[in-house]
Amino acid sequence: MRIAIKISYDGTAYGGWQRQKNAPSIQQCIEEALETVLGTPCHIVGAGRTDAGVHAYGQVAHFETDSGIPPEKFCYVLNQKLPADIRVIESRAAGEDFHARKGAVGKHYRYTIYHAPHASALERNTTMHIPQKLDLEQMQKAASYFEGEHDFSAFRSMGSNIIGTVRRIYKLEVTQNGPHIYMDVWGNGFLYNMVRIIAGTLISVGKGKIAAADIPDIIAAGDRTRAGVTAPAQGLAMCEVFYDDFFLENL
Amino acid sequence: MRIAIKISYDGTAYGGWQRQKNAPSIQQCIEEALETVLGTPCHIVGAGRTDAGVHAYGQVAHFETDSGIPPEKFCYVLNQKLPADIRVIESRAAGEDFHARKGAVGKHYRYTIYHAPHASALERNTTMHIPQKLDLEQMQKAASYFEGEHDFSAFRSMGSNIIGTVRRIYKLEVTQNGPHIYMDVWGNGFLYNMVRIIAGTLISVGKGKIAAADIPDIIAAGDRTRAGVTAPAQGLAMCEVFYDDFFLENL
Repeated sequence: MRIAIKISYDGTAYGGWQRQKNAPSIQQCIEEALETVLGTPCHIVGAGRTDAGVHAYGQVAHFETDSGIPPEKFCYVLNQKLPADIRVIESRAAGEDFHARKGAVGKHYRYTIYHAPHASALERNTTMHIPQKLDLEQMQKAASYFEGEHDFSAFRSMGSNIIGTVRRIYKLEVTQNGPHIYMDVWGNGFLYNMVRIIAGTLISVGKGKIAAADIPDIIAAGDRTRAGVTAPAQGLAMCEVFYDDFFLENL
Repeated sequence: MRIAIKISYDGTAYGGWQRQKNAPSIQQCIEEALETVLGTPCHIVGAGRTDAGVHAYGQVAHFETDSGIPPEKFCYVLNQKLPADIRVIESRAAGEDFHARKGAVGKHYRYTIYHAPHASALERNTTMHIPQKLDLEQMQKAASYFEGEHDFSAFRSMGSNIIGTVRRIYKLEVTQNGPHIYMDVWGNGFLYNMVRIIAGTLISVGKGKIAAADIPDIIAAGDRTRAGVTAPAQGLAMCEVFYDDFFLENL
């Protein structure tokens, strides 16, 4: 039976989602918890990789099991074995054709800036601190140029090796609430570091280093060096993964 | 010259505000940072002690110095020496008669519940997780009985040794925003563990274990055993300390 789980985690203590040799990973923790529960090794497939320090409110993964544990109980059973910085917040039976990565038709990421003279003691691991003046209106104007289908070659890390660099951004919103500036992006897929480079570029726009009106040209040129720097990992969170017909209905 | 500073901290890694033998404290960290900056030991006086694991958004403290550092620069200078989980968010010159503790005429504390089936991975250190059903309306009704001047003997930890147990609560608000339930309390002073015991009592009301209508009687009886348990430290934060004429003007 195929089980889908929704996972929230604080990525601060991890080398990222994916299993790796030199650092603990979210995937490894969940697979180890599953092995403890099931008594047999169990591989999970995540909707997307997140880098070291990146968080998640709604990462999705799937795995196969013949255990008699009711699908909706897996979250409770796994949370008893998992460290407190990883929580399985939902589990349910999925069709045999459900695939957390291949079936994902969209994702929502949020990048959070803490915009105040001093950094936040309590949100130091979940925000990027920017004390300088930011022009929110220009950031919003720049954001609108990212929406639509584009070749995002200028917005991926060098060395990343994916076939096809065209992606569709459904919506890119910049909002402020007190000291928090949120950059929320919904898209059908993202290249490596794409959200963090878009965030870094919008920050450069906010600081007046890149003109909002230049964004279409920077996208068209496909030149990574003209975009902003990759914003630091800790400000990023994977909020939601969308599948099939319940995708973006309410946007 | 007397300097007043406003401090925010994540209390997770500390034994509390006050200097102590067997655990690092916020006070110690700030005094050590000051000594590094000033080249001489410097004692600070905080508005109130917070327990191990309790946080602050607006703790206030004062100290004396003859250094030539402009008062409003101390926050920047100290933050360069302090760990990231402690931030001085404001510093300014205070009159010679300003006393962070004795001059405090009121404080605002917030207790935060994470009300969802599973705990929050990202807010595990700043919220108390309650998966059970809570009757918010009854909690709000119970909260209203705490407002006013009362002898709060029933709402302090045994063994605490303070002269006078009468305090005035100006306002006690219970609000919900998504999975967060906030208990915000403004008062002219609080007995040891008083906010956490009030929080624990309101939670008992929410769960139906204590009737809201019994609160006046529980306060009047002064019997600690009839109030709720002391809610865990990590849900509590000291939000603001009030002084003199700018106190509670807008309530």
